[in-house]
Amino acid sequence: MTAEIVSVGTELLLGQIVDTHAALMARILAGCGIGCTRRSTIGDNLDRLVGTLKDSLSRADVVVTIGGLGPTIDDITRDAIAIALGDELEEVPEVAEKLRQFFAARNVRMADSNLRQAKKPTSGRQIDNPNGTAPGLICEKNGKVVVALPGPKGEFDPMATGPVRHFLEQLQGGQVIHSRVLRIVGMGESSVEEVIRHLMEAENPTVAPYAQPAEVHLRVTARAATREDADRMIDPVVEQIRAILGNHLYGFNDTTLEAATIDLLVQRGETVAVAESMSGGSLGARLTSVPGSSKAFLGGAIVYTVDTKRALLGISDELLAEHGPVSEEAATAMATAIREKLGATYGVAITGNAGPTADVDGKPVGLAYIGLATSEGATAERGQYRGIREDIQRRSTQTALNLLRNKILS
Amino acid sequence: MTAEIVSVGTELLLGQIVDTHAALMARILAGCGIGCTRRSTIGDNLDRLVGTLKDSLSRADVVVTIGGLGPTIDDITRDAIAIALGDELEEVPEVAEKLRQFFAARNVRMADSNLRQAKKPTSGRQIDNPNGTAPGLICEKNGKVVVALPGPKGEFDPMATGPVRHFLEQLQGGQVIHSRVLRIVGMGESSVEEVIRHLMEAENPTVAPYAQPAEVHLRVTARAATREDADRMIDPVVEQIRAILGNHLYGFNDTTLEAATIDLLVQRGETVAVAESMSGGSLGARLTSVPGSSKAFLGGAIVYTVDTKRALLGISDELLAEHGPVSEEAATAMATAIREKLGATYGVAITGNAGPTADVDGKPVGLAYIGLATSEGATAERGQYRGIREDIQRRSTQTALNLLRNKILS
Repeated sequence: MTAEIVSVGTELLLGQIVDTHAALMARILAGCGIGCTRRSTIGDNLDRLVGTLKDSLSRADVVVTIGGLGPTIDDITRDAIAIALGDELEEVPEVAEKLRQFFAARNVRMADSNLRQAKKPTSGRQIDNPNGTAPGLICEKNGKVVVALPGPKGEFDPMATGPVRHFLEQLQGGQVIHSRVLRIVGMGESSVEEVIRHLMEAENPTVAPYAQPAEVHLRVTARAATREDADRMIDPVVEQIRAILGNHLYGFNDTTLEAATIDLLVQRGETVAVAESMSGGSLGARLTSVPGSSKAFLGGAIVYTVDTKRALLGISDELLAEHGPVSEEAATAMATAIREKLGATYGVAITGNAGPTADVDGKPVGLAYIGLATSEGATAERGQYRGIREDIQRRSTQTALNLLRNKILS
Repeated sequence: MTAEIVSVGTELLLGQIVDTHAALMARILAGCGIGCTRRSTIGDNLDRLVGTLKDSLSRADVVVTIGGLGPTIDDITRDAIAIALGDELEEVPEVAEKLRQFFAARNVRMADSNLRQAKKPTSGRQIDNPNGTAPGLICEKNGKVVVALPGPKGEFDPMATGPVRHFLEQLQGGQVIHSRVLRIVGMGESSVEEVIRHLMEAENPTVAPYAQPAEVHLRVTARAATREDADRMIDPVVEQIRAILGNHLYGFNDTTLEAATIDLLVQRGETVAVAESMSGGSLGARLTSVPGSSKAFLGGAIVYTVDTKRALLGISDELLAEHGPVSEEAATAMATAIREKLGATYGVAITGNAGPTADVDGKPVGLAYIGLATSEGATAERGQYRGIREDIQRRSTQTALNLLRNKILS
């Protein structure tokens, strides 16, 4: 079974955005054992899109379109699919009603163009979109399949990895290529590769490292008749890797370091509070991005100036004058203060200089101290991070989470 | 003049890498005033690549290939171009000699396959590659042009932005396509389109809307002899849009809402402090992502539990018991408390339920109150957001920034 991906959008042809959706869709097709033989990108041009869809349908069993399902006149994918399949468009009354309710609930007048989203080609059915107003489409006609997904990332990702992946797996029904991602923190890519190189020579399952922002992912991939068989082949390889990497292996697949950390805290009935200077709230943001984090995350203080360090945490001007706000002493004082103030098991603090220039004290860009306080006292670790502001903030929160996690596990 | 881009590589069809090269090439073509009408991605398959090149040459004036120029048997682009153009491949003696010297200098035996890189189609010439062993190609035949670039990033980027861009500019003989992005907040895509639809019918400059997370972008694109001429054509269109959208238009090109807000505060010598419940620090994180934000952002409190609302902000248990933590009253009290505690011009607060389930008080997922305090008192706005946790948090911080911005401007 073969597939082609058709991405729709003039912004792609102008190079204004990079087509990460097509790469994700390609991985999903590969994971279902469907060979992707071509990707095409077309602007918001009806004739060209219809021509491309017809060409793709003449070659491949499955055509997946990405984008162009929204409410505006630029959104032509729905029309193009209907024309390419020789279908009419028909309105789905329940979806039209849902759209009317959506706008009514927000007290917003619905532009008529929104009703375009309630239409589907006659041979198709809609895929529910809980994250937006444009449903997806699955059309099956003359032994060919067209799947259409919306372009916004918050709608594309869940629809692609959820109902569309499921549909394609059913459709293929044969061999699967199944992967598990092992997430590793506190080691660089080449260090990881050095200790697991012997495992990278195997052909099934394969093991491949990928450098990610401030962590390393190992992808273990097996080919087998079913996903369950593949999992049984992957399990012993994962155990070998765990024996080598120990606590550096913190989670699997989509488990983030913040989720792994919250999970550990919840298991132990422990809590954490944060005091953030350089990271400006992003450690709190990472922790609260985890559903259910309120069981373990109490809150914190964003103390971006000397005055706020005193006002919110009671850090003395003397301490800051003596050691500077970017210092081991400031980091431990901040961690201790927020822990006591909020009555948390752990207090974590980040202070540093994210750039773009050396700070008033002359502390270099990328220098940070990460403080960790428990009932037994506080310590701080010095870090020197590279990259732009965003990288430095990310690496500092990654270090903070890993310090906390290692302390919980110790 | 039109162009198509053909990316070559099975790893692209498997989704193992994202095609950032094609996006860069698309921007270069746009910058040269050459309209890119299609992008195709083909695996390492000679027949399919030859067929695609012939199709592309039948439609476009210029075809740019990316990848597949290396020494291995997988590298088929050179052969495919020769076949598609009806050319033979011929060895360029100087390039063959350079390859021999390259390997000799490294004391490495040269595999014969490396000599493939010294070959070129008869109608073509090679582009020198100072960063690798595979030269690029420019072939001109029957009024059509094929440009071939190597895939490794360290070779592709300098060749694309250097000699290839220069060649394409010469080829086009002057015209450029230049865009400006207008960033709009507080209106949905279809509402924006409804009020500016008359501007979307023009052909030069064109106006096109794009939905982005919690905002809308309008791209105004002009074709002209020079970038300056294009800017002069874009200016009056931008003024028309500004007259229609007013303060909803907050910035241009890469200016984020947080950067526009910090900029306004710094201009006026004003400051802001935040109190975040549902958003967990992400409003602070957005504000501090802006270089130089310490001039206007003082800090804040992350108050994820009832206890922390009392401990850090002094919000009374009575108020929370009476109205609940997700309420207009809680939002205004939080905004007022953080403003006073940190001595800021503005206090901004976010409280709500980001999901995934209704909270203890039964407040629905996505419900939020955004509080704003000034010296004249505090108000709160109710919001009901859709999507996954991340979307809800994003939309709440977007609303908060927009409320703050409108207050500063009022």
